[in-house]
Amino acid sequence: MATVPSVSYSITVRLEVAAGGKAVSQLTGAVEQAGGIVTALDLTPAGHDRLRIDVTCATRDTEHAQEIVDALEQVDGVTIHKVSDRTFLMHLGGKIEMQSKVPLRNRDELSMAYTPGVARVCLAIARNPDDVRRLTVKRNSVAVVTDGSAVLGLGNIGPEAALPVMEGKAALFKRFAGIDAWPICLDTQDTDELVRTVQILAPAFGGINLEDISAPRCFEVERRLRDLLDIPVFHDDQHGTAIVVLSALMNALRVVGKDLADVRVAMAGAGAAGTAVLKLLLHAGAKNVVVCDYRGAVHTGRDDLDESLRWIADNTNHEGYSGDLRGAVRGADVFIGVSAPGILTGEDIATMNEGSVVFALANPDPEVDPAEAREHAAVVATGRSDYPNQINNVLAFPGVFRGLLDAQSRTVTQDMLLAAARALAEVVTDKELGPNYIVPSVFHADVSHAVAAAVQKAATTAR
Amino acid sequence: MATVPSVSYSITVRLEVAAGGKAVSQLTGAVEQAGGIVTALDLTPAGHDRLRIDVTCATRDTEHAQEIVDALEQVDGVTIHKVSDRTFLMHLGGKIEMQSKVPLRNRDELSMAYTPGVARVCLAIARNPDDVRRLTVKRNSVAVVTDGSAVLGLGNIGPEAALPVMEGKAALFKRFAGIDAWPICLDTQDTDELVRTVQILAPAFGGINLEDISAPRCFEVERRLRDLLDIPVFHDDQHGTAIVVLSALMNALRVVGKDLADVRVAMAGAGAAGTAVLKLLLHAGAKNVVVCDYRGAVHTGRDDLDESLRWIADNTNHEGYSGDLRGAVRGADVFIGVSAPGILTGEDIATMNEGSVVFALANPDPEVDPAEAREHAAVVATGRSDYPNQINNVLAFPGVFRGLLDAQSRTVTQDMLLAAARALAEVVTDKELGPNYIVPSVFHADVSHAVAAAVQKAATTAR
Repeated sequence: MATVPSVSYSITVRLEVAAGGKAVSQLTGAVEQAGGIVTALDLTPAGHDRLRIDVTCATRDTEHAQEIVDALEQVDGVTIHKVSDRTFLMHLGGKIEMQSKVPLRNRDELSMAYTPGVARVCLAIARNPDDVRRLTVKRNSVAVVTDGSAVLGLGNIGPEAALPVMEGKAALFKRFAGIDAWPICLDTQDTDELVRTVQILAPAFGGINLEDISAPRCFEVERRLRDLLDIPVFHDDQHGTAIVVLSALMNALRVVGKDLADVRVAMAGAGAAGTAVLKLLLHAGAKNVVVCDYRGAVHTGRDDLDESLRWIADNTNHEGYSGDLRGAVRGADVFIGVSAPGILTGEDIATMNEGSVVFALANPDPEVDPAEAREHAAVVATGRSDYPNQINNVLAFPGVFRGLLDAQSRTVTQDMLLAAARALAEVVTDKELGPNYIVPSVFHADVSHAVAAAVQKAATTAR
Repeated sequence: MATVPSVSYSITVRLEVAAGGKAVSQLTGAVEQAGGIVTALDLTPAGHDRLRIDVTCATRDTEHAQEIVDALEQVDGVTIHKVSDRTFLMHLGGKIEMQSKVPLRNRDELSMAYTPGVARVCLAIARNPDDVRRLTVKRNSVAVVTDGSAVLGLGNIGPEAALPVMEGKAALFKRFAGIDAWPICLDTQDTDELVRTVQILAPAFGGINLEDISAPRCFEVERRLRDLLDIPVFHDDQHGTAIVVLSALMNALRVVGKDLADVRVAMAGAGAAGTAVLKLLLHAGAKNVVVCDYRGAVHTGRDDLDESLRWIADNTNHEGYSGDLRGAVRGADVFIGVSAPGILTGEDIATMNEGSVVFALANPDPEVDPAEAREHAAVVATGRSDYPNQINNVLAFPGVFRGLLDAQSRTVTQDMLLAAARALAEVVTDKELGPNYIVPSVFHADVSHAVAAAVQKAATTAR
């Protein structure tokens, strides 16, 4: 899997050259020859006979960016002034802000939004606590909560370093569902303290989105918070992933003409995401699933089962298969990997049943090379944006919370997640559906509305 | 003190009348006769020969609003459709929202603001933790933290009912200082838990504004958090009040030509605000202060002194005065009340020294009727917006935090508060200064900038 230049590694090089001649074509040529992709050129005159040029280009990584700068510097007559990193520029001062929705232009407006007028609104809520969902931001707000223990693929980098991700998540909540989310980065990794802290800070929020908390603590944190709180608690790494995977699988099975209740599923990964995917698959009607972790198939005969693995052993693998992942994949209709890079080869995929479906979701490097997998499988999906069928949580969480908030739901259930997955799958019409289009684009205008409507309906019915 | 109609009790009455004739003048006449003030009239045709009119008027309170609706209903030919409360309308759905500052229009922008691009920003912060103040919202964010135990004058109404105040505060932070504040309403009133919770949620914020936490817990919460955190912790009910009171006193003494080091000050109230005002007065150079609580003067001979009162006894009242408030006021140059309504009369104020200054700040009903006080005192200030010289915290907290954030200050000291008070006082020029103008308007364009610059300078010098 050769890495290609990415805008997320874009740099902007500000330089000066003599005006006239072939300056511009020499510069773009230098970038291209060094393997970069020019995405923007801004030229302004800089005094007598000189040009100032901002060259923006996508690079592969930091080292590659330096190679491109070196290449530009060697063009005749070029003076490099400054190299800036577009991703870092975008992050300067943070990506989100708080805005007032009410005008505060004069004393009268102050006296309604703040003292003394606000006192009557407070008293109304004190008398009728449900009014807090009508008269405050709680109606539309979600806390994006992390302890920084399992951030992206970066590991335990702590609450401060996790903040850019949580801000990004908050920005996505607004962009795709009009939700007011705020990042809450917690400086503790003790399970009891995490639970108690979120419980204590819950009153001003209409929902809790747990994010990037490492397993197995995330299971207990979520379960206990769901019992304690009267607002929905959603762990995106688990439930968001589960919804999008199930939705994509529903559509993949539409493509190959198989039924979820009949297919044999081999899974790799029994962590937070894997367990949530499994539970939603079973809830949706899957009957024949074998889950493997790094020791091989999970079965009731293993002597190393913790609580979570014990549940998996009791609810899957009814044949008691005790071999390795390769054996589990042999003859399977579906492979779902949420585990580690490069644990399967194209030859392994070739041993699967006719019309096989392969979801290799480890990021950035999938369980099997997608190009190899596509030689043998009917449908392949990954977590990457540079292949078709990207399994992306952005397809689920904004609409799910929109639906939960609109229903003023106090909980989130497997039925609601299932409704979200179905609605997401149905966004892809029969005409659009194909091996390379089982999930809609995250920018598809219907996604968030469709998911929200389905979740709201399920939440309202659940009462 | 007769209550006057206030826009914070505004109602809008939607009604229908026959077109033509004296309908409008009869309606406005009815409102006026019932003691209301018409602030807006919106007329639209409603079918054949009918007018729909929205009459907006300020009323005294809920009962008075009903009287006005009744009066309107009795006007010939009027049909009342709907009565809405403008303050409640303003609060529907909350007063604040989260906004993304970065565009998320396409996959490229997503890949810079979120995965995979954001990972590099996270790693940069993990490597250099100080970068969190450069690359995230922490640079500009304040948590507005309450436990709902002492909200305005409403008492212990809990975290949910406190939320409208905290949202209003956040809106003011943005309006007056461009700060991104978010309300954090905590569901505990245990001191240890409050301290630990704020400590745990601090990483994503650049400052903590404690709000409406009851005394004496607020002292301990603030003191312990200041020791624990590397961001400034400010209790607005204490320090915000102290800054504005000291600032107003500096200007009042300019008016009467006295010096803070020489004046005799009698204070009523030894709660959170009173204690903070006292400490800042002493820090600014006041030498002769007597503080009274509901039992009379605080002196070292009293046998009911808790830690806070003991500190007051040890640092004030060097003559050991042991009488009541009236005796303390006699011959004093300055009275500052942050206590209870109507505890002094005009006659008491008459016993003060020539050129006396009276700050009667109990809200909504001051310690002494301001009209009576003005017969005897040279300068009178209150917490009310319907008298001159309103002591309003909005004059201080936005600029203070702007300065602290811009200095990336890790703390807030008495020197910084003193600098804020001086800068606020200096906004009032010699030409503007007078008995009825010792504090600038909250809408004065210079206030927040002047306070911020002074605090930033003090914070930078303190390093």
